[in-house]
Amino acid sequence: MKGQKRIRDYNVNIGKLQPGENNSITDVKGVKVGHSTISNEFIKTGVTAILPHGGNIFKDKLIACSHVINGFGKTIGTIQIEELGTLETPIILTNTLSVGIASDALIEYMLLKNDDIGVKTGTVNPVVCECNDGYLNTIRGRYIKRENILNAIDSADKEFKEGSIGAGMGMSCYDLKGGIGTSSRKISIDNKEYTIGILVLSNFGNLKDFILDGSKVGVKLADKYKDLFKEEEDKGSIITILATDIPMSYRQLKRVSKRVGVGFSRTGSYIGNGSGEVVISFSTYNRIKHYEKQGIVDMKVFNENKIDLAFRAVAEATEEAVLNSLICSDTIKGRDGHIRYSLKEYINEL
Amino acid sequence: MKGQKRIRDYNVNIGKLQPGENNSITDVKGVKVGHSTISNEFIKTGVTAILPHGGNIFKDKLIACSHVINGFGKTIGTIQIEELGTLETPIILTNTLSVGIASDALIEYMLLKNDDIGVKTGTVNPVVCECNDGYLNTIRGRYIKRENILNAIDSADKEFKEGSIGAGMGMSCYDLKGGIGTSSRKISIDNKEYTIGILVLSNFGNLKDFILDGSKVGVKLADKYKDLFKEEEDKGSIITILATDIPMSYRQLKRVSKRVGVGFSRTGSYIGNGSGEVVISFSTYNRIKHYEKQGIVDMKVFNENKIDLAFRAVAEATEEAVLNSLICSDTIKGRDGHIRYSLKEYINEL
Amino acid sequence: MKGQKRIRDYNVNIGKLQPGENNSITDVKGVKVGHSTISNEFIKTGVTAILPHGGNIFKDKLIACSHVINGFGKTIGTIQIEELGTLETPIILTNTLSVGIASDALIEYMLLKNDDIGVKTGTVNPVVCECNDGYLNTIRGRYIKRENILNAIDSADKEFKEGSIGAGMGMSCYDLKGGIGTSSRKISIDNKEYTIGILVLSNFGNLKDFILDGSKVGVKLADKYKDLFKEEEDKGSIITILATDIPMSYRQLKRVSKRVGVGFSRTGSYIGNGSGEVVISFSTYNRIKHYEKQGIVDMKVFNENKIDLAFRAVAEATEEAVLNSLICSDTIKGRDGHIRYSLKEYINEL
Amino acid sequence: MKGQKRIRDYNVNIGKLQPGENNSITDVKGVKVGHSTISNEFIKTGVTAILPHGGNIFKDKLIACSHVINGFGKTIGTIQIEELGTLETPIILTNTLSVGIASDALIEYMLLKNDDIGVKTGTVNPVVCECNDGYLNTIRGRYIKRENILNAIDSADKEFKEGSIGAGMGMSCYDLKGGIGTSSRKISIDNKEYTIGILVLSNFGNLKDFILDGSKVGVKLADKYKDLFKEEEDKGSIITILATDIPMSYRQLKRVSKRVGVGFSRTGSYIGNGSGEVVISFSTYNRIKHYEKQGIVDMKVFNENKIDLAFRAVAEATEEAVLNSLICSDTIKGRDGHIRYSLKEYINEL
Repeated sequence: MKGQKRIRDYNVNIGKLQPGENNSITDVKGVKVGHSTISNEFIKTGVTAILPHGGNIFKDKLIACSHVINGFGKTIGTIQIEELGTLETPIILTNTLSVGIASDALIEYMLLKNDDIGVKTGTVNPVVCECNDGYLNTIRGRYIKRENILNAIDSADKEFKEGSIGAGMGMSCYDLKGGIGTSSRKISIDNKEYTIGILVLSNFGNLKDFILDGSKVGVKLADKYKDLFKEEEDKGSIITILATDIPMSYRQLKRVSKRVGVGFSRTGSYIGNGSGEVVISFSTYNRIKHYEKQGIVDMKVFNENKIDLAFRAVAEATEEAVLNSLICSDTIKGRDGHIRYSLKEYINEL
Repeated sequence: MKGQKRIRDYNVNIGKLQPGENNSITDVKGVKVGHSTISNEFIKTGVTAILPHGGNIFKDKLIACSHVINGFGKTIGTIQIEELGTLETPIILTNTLSVGIASDALIEYMLLKNDDIGVKTGTVNPVVCECNDGYLNTIRGRYIKRENILNAIDSADKEFKEGSIGAGMGMSCYDLKGGIGTSSRKISIDNKEYTIGILVLSNFGNLKDFILDGSKVGVKLADKYKDLFKEEEDKGSIITILATDIPMSYRQLKRVSKRVGVGFSRTGSYIGNGSGEVVISFSTYNRIKHYEKQGIVDMKVFNENKIDLAFRAVAEATEEAVLNSLICSDTIKGRDGHIRYSLKEYINEL
Repeated sequence: MKGQKRIRDYNVNIGKLQPGENNSITDVKGVKVGHSTISNEFIKTGVTAILPHGGNIFKDKLIACSHVINGFGKTIGTIQIEELGTLETPIILTNTLSVGIASDALIEYMLLKNDDIGVKTGTVNPVVCECNDGYLNTIRGRYIKRENILNAIDSADKEFKEGSIGAGMGMSCYDLKGGIGTSSRKISIDNKEYTIGILVLSNFGNLKDFILDGSKVGVKLADKYKDLFKEEEDKGSIITILATDIPMSYRQLKRVSKRVGVGFSRTGSYIGNGSGEVVISFSTYNRIKHYEKQGIVDMKVFNENKIDLAFRAVAEATEEAVLNSLICSDTIKGRDGHIRYSLKEYINEL
Repeated sequence: MKGQKRIRDYNVNIGKLQPGENNSITDVKGVKVGHSTISNEFIKTGVTAILPHGGNIFKDKLIACSHVINGFGKTIGTIQIEELGTLETPIILTNTLSVGIASDALIEYMLLKNDDIGVKTGTVNPVVCECNDGYLNTIRGRYIKRENILNAIDSADKEFKEGSIGAGMGMSCYDLKGGIGTSSRKISIDNKEYTIGILVLSNFGNLKDFILDGSKVGVKLADKYKDLFKEEEDKGSIITILATDIPMSYRQLKRVSKRVGVGFSRTGSYIGNGSGEVVISFSTYNRIKHYEKQGIVDMKVFNENKIDLAFRAVAEATEEAVLNSLICSDTIKGRDGHIRYSLKEYINEL
């Protein structure tokens, strides 16, 4: 977004459904995304924050689920999401060795916003997801500080940048530069328009496997530029945030989340062993009040007979979000002279 | 029920909550239970059917879940319950080697009631649960026929017998005679009364482990009657059906189902390796229409902040249902002179 | 196989790894496959049996797992596989409304082969998988009889036919004729050759989504032959059997099974709501003895650091097995004049 | 231990199996436990560390699993344990709002011990479990610092104190003072002795539900001391660490872990909504080398036909560990004059 050239600008149109206004997770009303980036010669890392709605998310929780595609990862907060089916904090993305500090800072943020936590009511469940940006970033330095988390949250907006920014700063994808990417799809239900939005933090895959809209371009690139791209073991990960304004139950969100893997597969992934692939999904429709008094409450839920529309939307938006994470990234040189080239340097040859 | 002397009639009152009118799963309005029993010198087996509501369950499905406590069992139909969160047939209980024929008969029953299945709409998901009654019953004979399933369904009623009847005919529990048992608890929500009902098919445990309302009576019995009760390997199982009129989501039913194990533990079980322990739970409140036209539908759900009441109810009713399955059973002599004594022959000494 | 023209014979070579000798699940030593088919004007159905090894599978069980990709299905036997991590019967595939009778016949077969079941030892866990062949087959007639199951088992061989045969007789895939397909891949570990084999019963997808090796041929076909292919709701399913001689633990088989979905996605699927997608996987290396006496036993397991090879093999073999199921099928006309065309009638135009 | 009066010293002998030498999780050879405690007028909190073996746990990982009994909790590190079935760090227990800092400190510790992490190899998966000690402790103050984690690890020993110490300093259990408790059981396999050890951090339950070895003493206490024990909502949690030297696979550890709930139930719990109940289990027998070179490796596994022994051991040791956590705790007065009385003040009246 924000003046970046995205995959559709290269005439690559994934799928059959229409994207939302900005083709972004923030097309789901209320969702905002913010970044905090650290970049110098040897540090390439950062934080990305996703705010699920504009209000107090602890007091007005959202129905949510997590789904682990491959669990070689360190995401924090999924046990409670799975038990209670709710999300009660912003979602923080960062590098793997900074999940502790990010969790600590998110707890601090939540305490500041809610003086009842830990005194008049229970505690709070921070949600922090991660990928390993160690190829470009001096990850052992653990340079993320609490300010980065707070700044990412504070800067969250409907408009945000994709590619090598925030948590995406140091990430690699298909041996190219990866990072933050987003996309959305519109769905009509009972003649009303709803949206499914996807945001990915991409950091997985080998170049030889990369598929661009069905075309095996990765093999071509790898053969043509043998000097630039060396055979590597896939040790990456990909985090996916799925937002929708369709009223879905926990179980429905779970089913929808499972179609994220379809999108990955279409870009060439076979879900590598070393990849931490976690999906966090939420629906903005129903609010679960922390201090609900009524014993029985009203809800809206999606008619499951029509859920195929949502499945297709997720598969399409995920595939496109991965491509956007690649095409919006710049070529980045990081620690020890390691370099990741941007897809945009090669796309015109493909 | 129906004139049987139950555990409360011996002044054993489990827990703190009040039972429903009949202290039965059928206290949940609409639920009915029926039996078909085969009993002669060497055949001791049968079928029990649970009807979730009085209407067409395929057209008006109920929200449901399954929960596997220990999966050394052959219950049929749980994959679809877990995916869609709905129940669309009666539930059939029978012996392990008859699950195939029971499933076939239940499909036949559903086809007869619904001429659209397999032609105008998809197929149907039969739910059949089982325990191994092979100690008393010549189980290899597979004496259950389709008529037994149809008869059990047809005879379903609000009033039904417990103990050594229906699928419970040949079952053993704590080396005593086990079988069918039921119990219920009332819960007040927003000043309205709701019910949780439990039905068990008990077939597990060793006498030495048996605990009666906190008292280790099993060891006493085993020591006193060494000739009657020989040390055996625990190869049993227990099936639990949980019904409630509280509006619960799939996820909530799942959580509630997990408290069934608490009830078992209180009777002395440590969940043996050989025990197939499966819970099927459903809520009668919301109906999921097979031919729903609306894209977004209204639902009621339970305020999860109050779910502890339901947890306690499940633990209590399960413990009591197991005890009722024991105390309502008669002493039964089956194949090869095998015999299981009824708890009621010993309870006055305990 | 057996003189059928397969997808490689059309110069479509999926992936990078080499297939085994017959490019078949039976390349895994000991695995055999047999069919029993019923075909007349209005009945198009059958049974396919997979025998995991040549010995007594009840006495020498194999390490196994099941994985549910989408659970709108009626597969029988997965609860015990998940608890104990073992397979103890042949695997039967048939139509949805015949799972009961197939289960009953498989129990009968197992009792005949093992006179200790139900007397000297516990019972047995039959594994039966299904798809809905109701578009071509008069499925309500439930024409599968016990003989079909026994015949399929008896006819099992290393060589077997693919396409519209056995359980695949009446199946549809991408609005074309689907059915049985197989493929395999070789993997070198410590300089020794191992095999992963896949067999699918394909019955899912809409033509417009069909992708052939990256090429969106489905849309082309649907546009060109508007009269032949009408827009339909995806109500299909796909069953996958995964066999390997790599020594894998239950957990490793589970991880490997999750890559089956990658293969489906590459053929165009987004895993439809109505699709029952279940994987049953087993490793032939370690044998789990039913009457094991030793308390601690020796095992071999795969070094998980090398599991990416197996992941890639599964993704490739699954994609190719689906294509083989399509290309080996004949055009079939079934009940009510319903017709499914074979891919081989169109592949030369693509 | 270490001169503390434990539940057996009051002639309460839980179960039938024999405890290990110290009746402690450290009876499993190589396991060590250490504490770091902060205690003043308004701060009552701390850290407990469990070291799974004496070597480098990152280089020589152990087979492990996690099991969520009730997921209203914030335990960190379970996603990777579940995927890979291994444990690669010490386990840290602390208060809920300190999981972030504890995770960060544990990462730091692991980086110090392994200079390859994040450079020559991937990252590391810290395991941190928690309970809410907010009744006695000013939990919002987040007084746990990195030194507390490092000190707890450094002080780990075969001998360690139970009760109100380390992470147990501020915990409550059944409205009494809870905290750290341990117990073990010996099992004979093939004439060799093996051990299962349990350590709990107890922080759950209402007094009225408390059962002491079958006796409903909680109701009695609550009635007798109405002024001291006010009716409270159960918001607690319990963390359980299970260690064994029996060679078990991931799947076997998972099954064994599920019997922890049996032990809780016997002490009166029905697994409250607000309770975060997580089990982390590991077997010290097989070592999984981080830099394993061989493609196929040898393993030992337990014969599952004998697993009932382990189930019973877990149920018994868990029940006893909870009781030890109560009886070894002192009466503690914490923030805002909140007080928790020790069971030892009342046990002689019971």
